[in-house]
Amino acid sequence: MKIPSLVLKQLFNHGSLENTPDGVIFGLKNRLSDAVVTGIREISIDGRRVPAGDIVLTLGDRTVAAAEVSTENPIDLPLAQTMTVLCRGDNLEVGKHSIGLSFDSTPFGKLKFSVKDAIREHKEERVTVPYDKEDDYSADIIGKRLDFARSFSGADFEHVPKNSFDPSETRGNIENFIGVAQIPIGLAGPIKINGEHAVGEFLVPLATTEGTLAASYNRGIKVLNLSGGVTCTVSDDRMQRAPVFVFDSAREARGFRDWVDAHLPEIAKAAEATSSVAKLLDIDMFLASRFAYLRFNYFTGDAAGQNMVGRATFAACSWMLDNVDNVRRFYLESNLATDKKHSQINIMRTRGKRVIAEAVVKRDVLVQHMRVEPESLQYHSQIANVGAFLSGANNNGAHSPNGITAMFIATGQDVANVAESSAGILYSELKSDGDLYMSLTIPSLIVATFGGGTSLPTQRECLAMMGCVGRGKVKKLAEIIAGVALAGEISLGSAISSLDWVSSHEKYGRNR
Amino acid sequence: MKIPSLVLKQLFNHGSLENTPDGVIFGLKNRLSDAVVTGIREISIDGRRVPAGDIVLTLGDRTVAAAEVSTENPIDLPLAQTMTVLCRGDNLEVGKHSIGLSFDSTPFGKLKFSVKDAIREHKEERVTVPYDKEDDYSADIIGKRLDFARSFSGADFEHVPKNSFDPSETRGNIENFIGVAQIPIGLAGPIKINGEHAVGEFLVPLATTEGTLAASYNRGIKVLNLSGGVTCTVSDDRMQRAPVFVFDSAREARGFRDWVDAHLPEIAKAAEATSSVAKLLDIDMFLASRFAYLRFNYFTGDAAGQNMVGRATFAACSWMLDNVDNVRRFYLESNLATDKKHSQINIMRTRGKRVIAEAVVKRDVLVQHMRVEPESLQYHSQIANVGAFLSGANNNGAHSPNGITAMFIATGQDVANVAESSAGILYSELKSDGDLYMSLTIPSLIVATFGGGTSLPTQRECLAMMGCVGRGKVKKLAEIIAGVALAGEISLGSAISSLDWVSSHEKYGRNR
Amino acid sequence: MKIPSLVLKQLFNHGSLENTPDGVIFGLKNRLSDAVVTGIREISIDGRRVPAGDIVLTLGDRTVAAAEVSTENPIDLPLAQTMTVLCRGDNLEVGKHSIGLSFDSTPFGKLKFSVKDAIREHKEERVTVPYDKEDDYSADIIGKRLDFARSFSGADFEHVPKNSFDPSETRGNIENFIGVAQIPIGLAGPIKINGEHAVGEFLVPLATTEGTLAASYNRGIKVLNLSGGVTCTVSDDRMQRAPVFVFDSAREARGFRDWVDAHLPEIAKAAEATSSVAKLLDIDMFLASRFAYLRFNYFTGDAAGQNMVGRATFAACSWMLDNVDNVRRFYLESNLATDKKHSQINIMRTRGKRVIAEAVVKRDVLVQHMRVEPESLQYHSQIANVGAFLSGANNNGAHSPNGITAMFIATGQDVANVAESSAGILYSELKSDGDLYMSLTIPSLIVATFGGGTSLPTQRECLAMMGCVGRGKVKKLAEIIAGVALAGEISLGSAISSLDWVSSHEKYGRNR
Amino acid sequence: MKIPSLVLKQLFNHGSLENTPDGVIFGLKNRLSDAVVTGIREISIDGRRVPAGDIVLTLGDRTVAAAEVSTENPIDLPLAQTMTVLCRGDNLEVGKHSIGLSFDSTPFGKLKFSVKDAIREHKEERVTVPYDKEDDYSADIIGKRLDFARSFSGADFEHVPKNSFDPSETRGNIENFIGVAQIPIGLAGPIKINGEHAVGEFLVPLATTEGTLAASYNRGIKVLNLSGGVTCTVSDDRMQRAPVFVFDSAREARGFRDWVDAHLPEIAKAAEATSSVAKLLDIDMFLASRFAYLRFNYFTGDAAGQNMVGRATFAACSWMLDNVDNVRRFYLESNLATDKKHSQINIMRTRGKRVIAEAVVKRDVLVQHMRVEPESLQYHSQIANVGAFLSGANNNGAHSPNGITAMFIATGQDVANVAESSAGILYSELKSDGDLYMSLTIPSLIVATFGGGTSLPTQRECLAMMGCVGRGKVKKLAEIIAGVALAGEISLGSAISSLDWVSSHEKYGRNR
Repeated sequence: MKIPSLVLKQLFNHGSLENTPDGVIFGLKNRLSDAVVTGIREISIDGRRVPAGDIVLTLGDRTVAAAEVSTENPIDLPLAQTMTVLCRGDNLEVGKHSIGLSFDSTPFGKLKFSVKDAIREHKEERVTVPYDKEDDYSADIIGKRLDFARSFSGADFEHVPKNSFDPSETRGNIENFIGVAQIPIGLAGPIKINGEHAVGEFLVPLATTEGTLAASYNRGIKVLNLSGGVTCTVSDDRMQRAPVFVFDSAREARGFRDWVDAHLPEIAKAAEATSSVAKLLDIDMFLASRFAYLRFNYFTGDAAGQNMVGRATFAACSWMLDNVDNVRRFYLESNLATDKKHSQINIMRTRGKRVIAEAVVKRDVLVQHMRVEPESLQYHSQIANVGAFLSGANNNGAHSPNGITAMFIATGQDVANVAESSAGILYSELKSDGDLYMSLTIPSLIVATFGGGTSLPTQRECLAMMGCVGRGKVKKLAEIIAGVALAGEISLGSAISSLDWVSSHEKYGRNR
Repeated sequence: MKIPSLVLKQLFNHGSLENTPDGVIFGLKNRLSDAVVTGIREISIDGRRVPAGDIVLTLGDRTVAAAEVSTENPIDLPLAQTMTVLCRGDNLEVGKHSIGLSFDSTPFGKLKFSVKDAIREHKEERVTVPYDKEDDYSADIIGKRLDFARSFSGADFEHVPKNSFDPSETRGNIENFIGVAQIPIGLAGPIKINGEHAVGEFLVPLATTEGTLAASYNRGIKVLNLSGGVTCTVSDDRMQRAPVFVFDSAREARGFRDWVDAHLPEIAKAAEATSSVAKLLDIDMFLASRFAYLRFNYFTGDAAGQNMVGRATFAACSWMLDNVDNVRRFYLESNLATDKKHSQINIMRTRGKRVIAEAVVKRDVLVQHMRVEPESLQYHSQIANVGAFLSGANNNGAHSPNGITAMFIATGQDVANVAESSAGILYSELKSDGDLYMSLTIPSLIVATFGGGTSLPTQRECLAMMGCVGRGKVKKLAEIIAGVALAGEISLGSAISSLDWVSSHEKYGRNR
Repeated sequence: MKIPSLVLKQLFNHGSLENTPDGVIFGLKNRLSDAVVTGIREISIDGRRVPAGDIVLTLGDRTVAAAEVSTENPIDLPLAQTMTVLCRGDNLEVGKHSIGLSFDSTPFGKLKFSVKDAIREHKEERVTVPYDKEDDYSADIIGKRLDFARSFSGADFEHVPKNSFDPSETRGNIENFIGVAQIPIGLAGPIKINGEHAVGEFLVPLATTEGTLAASYNRGIKVLNLSGGVTCTVSDDRMQRAPVFVFDSAREARGFRDWVDAHLPEIAKAAEATSSVAKLLDIDMFLASRFAYLRFNYFTGDAAGQNMVGRATFAACSWMLDNVDNVRRFYLESNLATDKKHSQINIMRTRGKRVIAEAVVKRDVLVQHMRVEPESLQYHSQIANVGAFLSGANNNGAHSPNGITAMFIATGQDVANVAESSAGILYSELKSDGDLYMSLTIPSLIVATFGGGTSLPTQRECLAMMGCVGRGKVKKLAEIIAGVALAGEISLGSAISSLDWVSSHEKYGRNR
Repeated sequence: MKIPSLVLKQLFNHGSLENTPDGVIFGLKNRLSDAVVTGIREISIDGRRVPAGDIVLTLGDRTVAAAEVSTENPIDLPLAQTMTVLCRGDNLEVGKHSIGLSFDSTPFGKLKFSVKDAIREHKEERVTVPYDKEDDYSADIIGKRLDFARSFSGADFEHVPKNSFDPSETRGNIENFIGVAQIPIGLAGPIKINGEHAVGEFLVPLATTEGTLAASYNRGIKVLNLSGGVTCTVSDDRMQRAPVFVFDSAREARGFRDWVDAHLPEIAKAAEATSSVAKLLDIDMFLASRFAYLRFNYFTGDAAGQNMVGRATFAACSWMLDNVDNVRRFYLESNLATDKKHSQINIMRTRGKRVIAEAVVKRDVLVQHMRVEPESLQYHSQIANVGAFLSGANNNGAHSPNGITAMFIATGQDVANVAESSAGILYSELKSDGDLYMSLTIPSLIVATFGGGTSLPTQRECLAMMGCVGRGKVKKLAEIIAGVALAGEISLGSAISSLDWVSSHEKYGRNR
């Protein structure tokens, strides 16, 4: 795989250039995927080649002279690790300098690029949170941070530090760890799910601080269970990254679009080389001005996949940039993904899972348990439709984000995805026998049973409560969430509707 | 205050009708505000008056004969409490029955209404989560629930039960409590806020499981601090409830709109009687078909206020319904509020706080610390604008919901409000001196420093870290959140933009 | 091609059942495509077969006995024609009756279906506009209609009847013709277009009654011409019809979606059989509740194509309905097309032509001719972007629909398509040399040079003025319209921006 | 009324500076409202005062020496007229020059300001359309333009020049007049309108080239008439202009918002001084970044009012700019108006008229005349709602813009307003007796019976046909349009729905 130089700079983003007593040092941080350096060809500073004998490379515990690096004696450069490069010799003057690099690697082949950096006059004196380069999750450094926070803010922290697990389990989930937020969990259910992946009754953990929420969902669950349960279907499954390419003209952007269309297999190959899971499904392309917006749609397995598709799309774009001449600018994201945002494109084209929960709610159950007739619920639904149209809302239902958020917090989802997952389409239909067909379509439910926060202790236990730990479980989880969300629609919709009419005969019976 | 009968039914929603060995019992639940019952005038079942001597009222520990209730010997009926009514005598047959009630109360005066209920054939046999009517937060019942969950799901719960506080502190925040979700907290900052309420440097707790998020925000905070800090302004502050009134015709709906316009003082009085804090600011009115949608805008102090405005609007609507003849149906919510949803009306008219964070980011700081030139960041911003327009996104920025969500979880906010709070308007402008003016407008940030989850142990500590505990602090918190959110925009925007161009000279230097 | 019976009923929609002195008559109207009836197998009324000898068919001037119809003696039944069927014998009673039909046809083969109709008690006495079945475009009937209108309304019509052409030329464009609206046409241009289809300078007819509009466009055109002209590019070209299929469950809808995906070639074949021009490009599919929404995207040549794609999609759906068992309801349109409406899907996925007009506007030209500096125009553009975001507008520019509408009226377009064509994305970018790159993307410009009103006398002349008459010209027309629209953006944008700042020194020079 | 200098420049925008044999000339164009110049105080070029005796003013036929102008001998300077100023003396060099002006006027008082302009090297040789400064609507100049168009384009124009009226009647409606587009008009109706302003039956002129449109509307009208007619209600009436004010900070923008709130009476006074009709209803204010967006809502009588509110808002802003110190930039329009665009704000807050058409459509009429059952129409309406939600459409109905556009063209409306007027909210509800309540809400119908194209010959006749000519008729027209639009919804909705289901028993009866 060839990588254009502009991408290289990003991939091997260097750490700050600094003078040291021994010479000059800087870092190379690998930002794409695991690599191995198999030879150093040349390093130059301000155009002057640094003699190979003066170059020393350090990564973790290992230090190697540049001249010793070879195919037989390679340097592992895993993803997210920084290799420090020391160039022995004179210090550099304050101001800007350029560094040239050329080396061999696997799987990237020969890499050659240059970057610019500066030696700064002096380091700013800034108050910063204590940090330990070696192990930032030890009791010691956490204690120092808490002390710092106490002294800085004057507040005390009795409960925050009381996590029940080894802080190092949060590595990869949080930086500057000081403890945990304890969010109360209440039980809802069991709820009867007639899914393809979730079949049977499931106890549901709701992590929330909003009183009555668990109770409200339980009321809706009772109605669903008494009506035979809720049928859930995952209709689509896709995660996106949406780069943009800038050209000199709209015509060139159009040409690029056509070129991409003709090279989908190669693009998919480049993208999928970065992961054993990600599959490129297709690319939506949108032209405006002289910009070509590409929305890559991927299958990402049991992970939510935002990082996975970022890496894959980056690799795909690198391949494209390497094979196209006329791109003027390139950004890996363009606001068409649209991560952590509601958007019409998410509603239409799915982000995460598109899940539909359906139930035929029995008239008697509604009347006896919710004190509402199906007609009133249906009437409210029609009025709320008009309300949503007037307000420009992304959800014509009552409050599906409530249940979704509570389950997201409990199960270690990326909770900011509530932005996308808040969209919902509630549809109800009176049947001729008086029962009420109801469905809730969640077009962009972003969930995972693998990766992110899903393996943290309490989160994993909450997933386990629903039999949703790990591989092969993400659609099951999506089905359960959708079923619970529909329960909430029934519950709040009924509460609103049970108080819904003024008949003339009642006007006379009023309290006078 | 007079209350129409349809509202009464809702206010004093009765518990289930049941046969007991002593006779028939049912419950009256007070759902509006604290009240005192000063006399029982009549209770009838299926039109037959129950002799006063056969009626026994129970509320909590206290039991009173109906005949004894008087102004001198009233029954306290606080909000959310249920008074049980026992009518001695024969049991009722299975099927529907009507109950008529008439009594005196403060502050509602004489209340008279009737409800329908049914004696059911048999109770359904349903698997339900263990519950203790007396004290549902005791170690005993929590243990029973955990045992139930273990046995039902086969999963084990080692960490969930390890909350560091007395579970009864969660009363009003959760039902069916079993423990807590532990969400890792990382420190960001200190961030320099030049607000009207937040002035100085603030350490910020971010509760998230998304790796690199805290680090990313810290990079942006560094840029802001080195540029002199971030200026934050709360421009609007309002919370909504939006009932809908159904009429026989559009013309009647229009007449009602005009009537409401002419009676705003009385409506405000009715609304504000329910709370010492809520102030009715104004009512937006929207007509469509034969429906009049009213969007009540309130000031709610340091609480987020959703419940407060629900109660107030309910009272206002009761007054309106009592003074208008031609309402055919009434629903307390119509999807114009729009709670837990993104909507254009929230963007325009504010829901919660409208906060604007501004900074003039220095060119040198951007270049040295983020390796991006202001022009590239600005260029990306323009392209992302077009992207947001194409996708129909509710946010033209990068990822403000990330920081907002992490602070919401840490500080006990209602996290489902991320749906509304995800909207954002990022605006940047190159200054003639090369610096970059940036602003982030969050049009519907829903926050509280009082009520909801804000007083839970870890949440309160996180608020304390920022000096945001309790009364008079909510705008301070809003300012800090907005400043942090802008930091995230700078950080991610720069990361995207630092890799943004292809110049021809680099094409030739490529790795071939 | 097989046609399911439900489709047949629609295709051969019968005219009203009536008693006559000779027996019973009803009509069969052909609503799909030209056909030939090659044999009458059976006609029955209320289950009783009508003897072949008693059946007489009339179409236009021709009358045939049913028994005589054969492959050798077929009846032509062109699209939109009605064949009258007389069944000699007794009259039917007032009330409902069913009619059964069975006959052979080309290209539809054997057709058999039944319909229900009623003999009405009496015809309503309704005031109706005079109509002549034989020739509704003769001077005589037009005169009668004008007399009717005069007498009904009391108004006089001196100008409306003064069309300069033979009214019969409007057949297929209007019913109940009485004359013409005379819309003033002003000249704009010549405008220099650097298109792929429009190359050179073009005089532009603007039909409008909005004063200053032609003048304003001319100012913008001058700027464009002095800057080297405007470059126009058609990036996409597609027209839609969007049927919806209703199933018993979301899962069945999903199955159908997958089935459609697997049968695209057959579907395309069925669709394209209805036209020599229409090509099915692809089908966008959207699932919600138990509905499968299909958005058929077609190439339609020089016609706008709404009717063409309606017929094609109808045929495709017929094929699908004939091959799928579980469809519960079917509607040919579902509000996803979205004809005569603005929609986000049109902005994203193009409806009609997606055209982009670009120009590098010279600083000196702007300053001298529009008295505005590029910076001010650019600044306004950024502010207007935020304004569009706040208001939820479908166009972030100034007024592109003005020019588009004026050209639509002049050239015989379906002017109601201004709803879609009003969307626009204006983008501008200051170049380092001080000039201003501007582009206007019109994502759903619906135009034709063939069909509809394009061949009417004045309309054709206006098309001829731009060399855009007939086949192979539609993209040329689209390019010219886009270029003109950009001229209008420059003109109005400049007018707004030329008055854009308040400097302190001017505050003191004020008129006091 | 004081006018700030920046506004002056715009108001009295000068024509091009030129050298002539007699000296130097330039023009002053009055762009706000009728004025009278009562004295010339001083004119200077490049800082040098021009002797009063060397200044000659020309306006139309009249020429006056500057020294002679006085209160007794004033110069009328009507709106849109240009006064030429000749300064005798030497020519100016090629390049930039500044001109200072100071004079007395009514109603503006003393006006003093300076402008910059340039003497250009040479005039560009541009091909331009023939134009006659004196009378641009004479047969002669129109003939020249037609000849020019013929020769330029090679096309012939036989029909375009055949207008039936004196071209000078189009003054104020069109520039560069060459003739007319003849749009066929068909009759629809009579339609029975039960309005407040339109009461009775009305014949409706539809100007369109879309075949079947008139026929389709007539079918719907028949249904409405047989159901007792259509009830129409104008619920709101307002027209907007939305300036934006730029400040140094969000806080200043907020301060300005509060200042405006406190000065509404003065602002209204300034605005309303410009027209005898316009009334300022209120101002919607929206804050984002450091911008204050103000949306002025006006009552504009029988005119559509876009120009009226432009002038009024301009005057109001002038007053505001004169009384506020810290505005940095000001634009009269900000994309919040939102003229000629669909927007959510128009749907919510009304632009033009908000009209609601309602009818209870009788079951029998639907079944007999449209061959559709109310249930099917209602079902389609619900599905189309979901479709509109998915597509992000501005109209959940079928095609209201069709009828609206046809009536707009016929009656001289500004047809580009179809962009706004295309929005629609269709709502239907099955009644317990089987009839169907239907309503169409058009939230932003922009119509006029006065001004614009309404007084042109054919347009006036079409208005007369409905009794809608001139003052006091605009709501009547709005009601008729809404009624017709609802007829179209019934007609097309029924056409779509009459073919809507597949029942299993029909599957077997298929043509095999």
